Amino acid sequence: MRFGRIATPEGMTFAVIDDEGTTAKAIAGTPFTEPEYTGKEWPLADVRLLAPMLPSKVVAIGRNYADHVAEVFKQSAEHLPPTLFLKPPTAVIGPEAAIKIPEFATKVEFEGEMALVIGSPCKNVKAEDWKSVVRGVTIVNDVSSRDLQFADGQWARAKGIDTFCPLGPWIETDLEKFDFTNTPIKAHLTHDGVTETKQDSNSNQMIMNLGEIIEFITASFTLLPGDVICTGSPAGTAEMVPGDRIEVEIPGIGSLSSPVERA
Amino acid sequence: MRFGRIATPEGMTFAVIDDEGTTAKAIAGTPFTEPEYTGKEWPLADVRLLAPMLPSKVVAIGRNYADHVAEVFKQSAEHLPPTLFLKPPTAVIGPEAAIKIPEFATKVEFEGEMALVIGSPCKNVKAEDWKSVVRGVTIVNDVSSRDLQFADGQWARAKGIDTFCPLGPWIETDLEKFDFTNTPIKAHLTHDGVTETKQDSNSNQMIMNLGEIIEFITASFTLLPGDVICTGSPAGTAEMVPGDRIEVEIPGIGSLSSPVERA
Repeated sequence: MRFGRIATPEGMTFAVIDDEGTTAKAIAGTPFTEPEYTGKEWPLADVRLLAPMLPSKVVAIGRNYADHVAEVFKQSAEHLPPTLFLKPPTAVIGPEAAIKIPEFATKVEFEGEMALVIGSPCKNVKAEDWKSVVRGVTIVNDVSSRDLQFADGQWARAKGIDTFCPLGPWIETDLEKFDFTNTPIKAHLTHDGVTETKQDSNSNQMIMNLGEIIEFITASFTLLPGDVICTGSPAGTAEMVPGDRIEVEIPGIGSLSSPVERA
Repeated sequence: MRFGRIATPEGMTFAVIDDEGTTAKAIAGTPFTEPEYTGKEWPLADVRLLAPMLPSKVVAIGRNYADHVAEVFKQSAEHLPPTLFLKPPTAVIGPEAAIKIPEFATKVEFEGEMALVIGSPCKNVKAEDWKSVVRGVTIVNDVSSRDLQFADGQWARAKGIDTFCPLGPWIETDLEKFDFTNTPIKAHLTHDGVTETKQDSNSNQMIMNLGEIIEFITASFTLLPGDVICTGSPAGTAEMVPGDRIEVEIPGIGSLSSPVERA
């Protein structure tokens, strides 16, 4: 089932989106329980999709694809194992909302990633139990100013600027429809009217798999419902400039598209 | 005025704490507006002080005291300027709640700091206007596993483990009672029954002052009411082990004391 959050003429609401992506049916509660339909529905074209969740925290794993480690850090993954970082909730935006680049954030790159949305409060989860605490999957773009990232050392600013966390378009709760050991992840960049596929990888390139990521994080942090886990970016990240459009695509979820503007 | 959050036999509430620290008067709303008293009050000894705020984010500035940079990073502050990092809200605990150290978090140190609590949503604040967006000041202990910090490179895990962000005891809103260019910060460690003052510094050692910190952060991040800004730790940080007690003291606010336990 696909849960979205939408802006309608009557206000914001969570909604169930049909598999064709044509209709949004409003629900009374949240995506964390079985949907209770209010009876209101809209063609998806008549509403605006928002970020499907406002997380209390966004926990991300860096350096989780060996090919991306090599391209960004110029070192092998053996010498630079995966590491945790946090993106602030204020960076989260929804589909079609603009990534806004301030003047001081130079060399801003996209990073298309699969994201997990936590479904229940949890701590010390074993890898094999990860699905029991995850409500669904969505797409995240871990936007990063490469220059700030290396100048600061810590990545919070480079990856935490307002609008640097596009999330969506919705939360797919049917985990069984995915083979998480073999899920394609792509990112298509449109620059000067020309669209190129820059990222064309697969979750089979992950160093830590989804269960290992949840075990690793929850050994330290309690996760709460709605918290978002960014599972790492594969190779192919590249610079975006104002005027561009970036679309991250994961089959079975859909695509997350963002225009790029000057802040 | 001092705003605290308390657990009473009737539930949790925000409260105004008198200057003597003896009485808690419940308020109907939050610390963000003038207090509306409910008429209920308790001797402070009969209630439990909680973290005075549950922030949507905790933004911290690292390497903001030259003497601390030298002791931890073995380099001069000129070569390692201040940097931003985030602590997850789930790390926040209140006064007298235990810092719980898991086995894998070795060389865990305290870092006594002044914290700012944001009062209104803000972005692109000029340094000279910082007081207009700050509701008050409190104390934070930026607990850090030095070993994880350097092994991971990113500090999120080393500084974000559950219980690694003691906050309190309350929010002091009278900013005019402080000379922020000359405010003492101390930390007293009790080990094996012997108490030693380990940190004995002053805000005059800050590299970026409070206004510069707010300007720096809000150039990138929108801050929301309740967000907590950790303003950096002076020299004197040292290891804590289970059985110890750590107390951070800032005159004009009070002291924040935490027992240390094995998780």
